[in-house]
Amino acid sequence: MSDLINKQILLKSRPVGEPTESDFALVETSIPEPGDGEILTRTIYLSLDPYMRGRIGASKSYTTNVELNSAIVSGTVSQVVKSNHPHFQARDIVLDYNGWQTFGVSKAELLRKLDPTQAPISYALGVLGMPGMTAYFALLDIGQPKVGETVVISAASGAVGSVAGQIAKIKGSRVIGIVGSDEKRDFVVKELGFDAAINRKKQELNAALQEAAPNGIDVYFDNTAGAILETVLHQINLGARIPLVGLISEYNAVSPPPGPNLRPLLINRAVIKGFLVRDYQHRQNEFLSDVSNWLKSGKLKYKEDVVVGLENAPRAFIGLLQGENFGKLIVKVGDDYT
Amino acid sequence: MSDLINKQILLKSRPVGEPTESDFALVETSIPEPGDGEILTRTIYLSLDPYMRGRIGASKSYTTNVELNSAIVSGTVSQVVKSNHPHFQARDIVLDYNGWQTFGVSKAELLRKLDPTQAPISYALGVLGMPGMTAYFALLDIGQPKVGETVVISAASGAVGSVAGQIAKIKGSRVIGIVGSDEKRDFVVKELGFDAAINRKKQELNAALQEAAPNGIDVYFDNTAGAILETVLHQINLGARIPLVGLISEYNAVSPPPGPNLRPLLINRAVIKGFLVRDYQHRQNEFLSDVSNWLKSGKLKYKEDVVVGLENAPRAFIGLLQGENFGKLIVKVGDDYT
Repeated sequence: MSDLINKQILLKSRPVGEPTESDFALVETSIPEPGDGEILTRTIYLSLDPYMRGRIGASKSYTTNVELNSAIVSGTVSQVVKSNHPHFQARDIVLDYNGWQTFGVSKAELLRKLDPTQAPISYALGVLGMPGMTAYFALLDIGQPKVGETVVISAASGAVGSVAGQIAKIKGSRVIGIVGSDEKRDFVVKELGFDAAINRKKQELNAALQEAAPNGIDVYFDNTAGAILETVLHQINLGARIPLVGLISEYNAVSPPPGPNLRPLLINRAVIKGFLVRDYQHRQNEFLSDVSNWLKSGKLKYKEDVVVGLENAPRAFIGLLQGENFGKLIVKVGDDYT
Repeated sequence: MSDLINKQILLKSRPVGEPTESDFALVETSIPEPGDGEILTRTIYLSLDPYMRGRIGASKSYTTNVELNSAIVSGTVSQVVKSNHPHFQARDIVLDYNGWQTFGVSKAELLRKLDPTQAPISYALGVLGMPGMTAYFALLDIGQPKVGETVVISAASGAVGSVAGQIAKIKGSRVIGIVGSDEKRDFVVKELGFDAAINRKKQELNAALQEAAPNGIDVYFDNTAGAILETVLHQINLGARIPLVGLISEYNAVSPPPGPNLRPLLINRAVIKGFLVRDYQHRQNEFLSDVSNWLKSGKLKYKEDVVVGLENAPRAFIGLLQGENFGKLIVKVGDDYT
C-alpha cells in the first residue's frame, strides 16, 4: 500500500461556538498497515451527524473527545482492501467507523458486513443505521405513540426525525413536524405523509402548534431542546412522553443555555428521558427487520443529501449544525464498490 | 347552629410574587346547614402545604384556583357536628377538606373516618396523609431506590422530604438531605438517620454534594426545582431517576423562571417525571399499611410544626414558602376531639 496516499481531515483546534473551516485541516499521510486481526478499508461514504459537535468541543461528552491533530470520527461505509481476519475478505462492503479519511484500519469486531443487494449501501449510515435505530427505539420505547395520539417531532426532515415521524404514522398517530424551511415543510407532509408541518423560521411556533395539534401533544420527539422544547411543553397532555434525543439547538453554544421551566411536566405528570442509541445495540435485529420491511413495502421513505469529496466535509458539517442539509447528510469519499 | 359563628379566612387578592397578609382577610359568617347526605364538621387542624400557592395565584394550576372572597382550601382534621349521612355520626373524627375556616359542610364521599387510637389524628395531614403518600409513591414508583444507591432529597426536613428520606433509608440507600439551616441539617442526620445533609444557605452546594455523594447521584427527589435541580443534574449517574414532586423555589415567582439545561439528562439517559399524588388514590392502602407499620416500629419518625389559631394561618403560610417551618406545618384551629 506504500504507493497509495491516505487523505485525512484532522481537528486542528477545538471550536468555541460555531465551528469554522480553519478548525480542520486536510493532510496526506501514508496508508496504515493492518495488524493481526485487523482490516484495512477504503472509505466510500462517511456520515455527518450533529452529535459529532460534542466530540470536537472542549466540554465533557458521553464519549471520548477527538484528540487534536487526529482524524474526525464518524461512521463510514467502506470496502475491504486487505483483511487479516477470516470473517472479512477484500472487496467486502462493511459498516465501519473510519472517520474523515480515505483509508483506515479497524478491528474486525467493529465492522458489520453489508449486503449491497438488500439496500443501497449508504443506507447503513442512515435509515438502516444509527440515525434510523435512534428514531426507532427512542420513539417506540420512550415515546410509545398510540393510535390517535398526537406526536410532534423537531428537526423533522433530518435523518432521525424523518424516520421517527414515519414510524409514528405507521403506529396510527397524528404526526406534526417542525422544520426550518418551506421546502422541508412540503417534503415531510407531501412526501413522508406527516399530517402537518410548521416552518419555525416563518411561523410563530406556539400558535402554529395550537392549530396543528388542537388536542394537545402526547409525544414530543425532541432532537433540538432549546426554545422549541419550551414551547412544546406548554401544550403537552396528561402523561406526555418526551424522548430527549438531541440538543441541536445548543451544540454550538459556548456555555450551556438554561432549559425549559419544568412546571408543565409536573402538572401533566409527563416524562422526559434522555436517549442514547448505544443502549439498544443488543436489539439491533428488531430494528433492522422492521425498518427493512417498511422500506421494501414503501411505508417508509428515505432522503439523502450527498456531498461529494472528503475535502467538503468540514463545510457540510458546519451547515448541518445550521440546518442547511435536506435529508440525511453523507459525504461520498471514494468510488462506489467495484 | 345559628348561635355559633363560623370564622373563615378569605382570599382577598391574588398575590403577585410573595403573598402578604393583606391578601387574606378573616371574616365571621354564620355556620352553614348540611343538606341531604352532607356533614357539618368543625376544624381541629388544618394543613399548610406549598402546593396551595398555586391555588391562590393567577396562573393555571393543576386544579381549580380558589375564587376571590372564598375561603382558602386545605386539608383538615375535623370533628363531625351534625351528619345527614348514615356513615358518619356526631363526634366522629374525620379527614376532611374544609379549608381555612372553623366550620364546614362536606359531602360524605370526601371524608375519611380516622381512628384516634391508631395514631395522633393530626398525622392524617402529614405522614399518614397527602405529604406522606407523596413521599411514598414518588420515591418508590419513580425514584426506585436500590440498596447502595445514593438518593438526594431537597427540602429534606419538610413534610414530604423527611418521609421520603427515611423510606429511602429503609430501602437500603445512602441518603443525603438538602436543607436550609444548621438546625434542620442536624435534625435529618441525628434524628432521622440520613447519612449526610447540606445547609444550602451556608455551604456551596456543588462542592458539598461532591463530598457527600462521591459515587454520584442515582435518585434525586425534587421538591424545589430551580438552582438545586440544576446543580444536582451535573452529578447524576447513568440511569438516574428524578421524581419532580414540587417547585417550592418558584411558587412565588412572578413569571416562570428558566429550568436546568438538560444535557446531563441525555448523556446519562436519565429520567425526570412529574408526580401528583392524586394519581395514586387507588393505592392508598399500600401506603397506609407500610407507613403505619414503620411508625409503630420506630423506623419512621415524624415531626410537626404546630401553629395555634386560625388567624395565624396566613403568616404561617407565607413563612412556609420561605422555609421557615421546621417539620410538617399545621394550624391548630379548634379544641382537640372531645
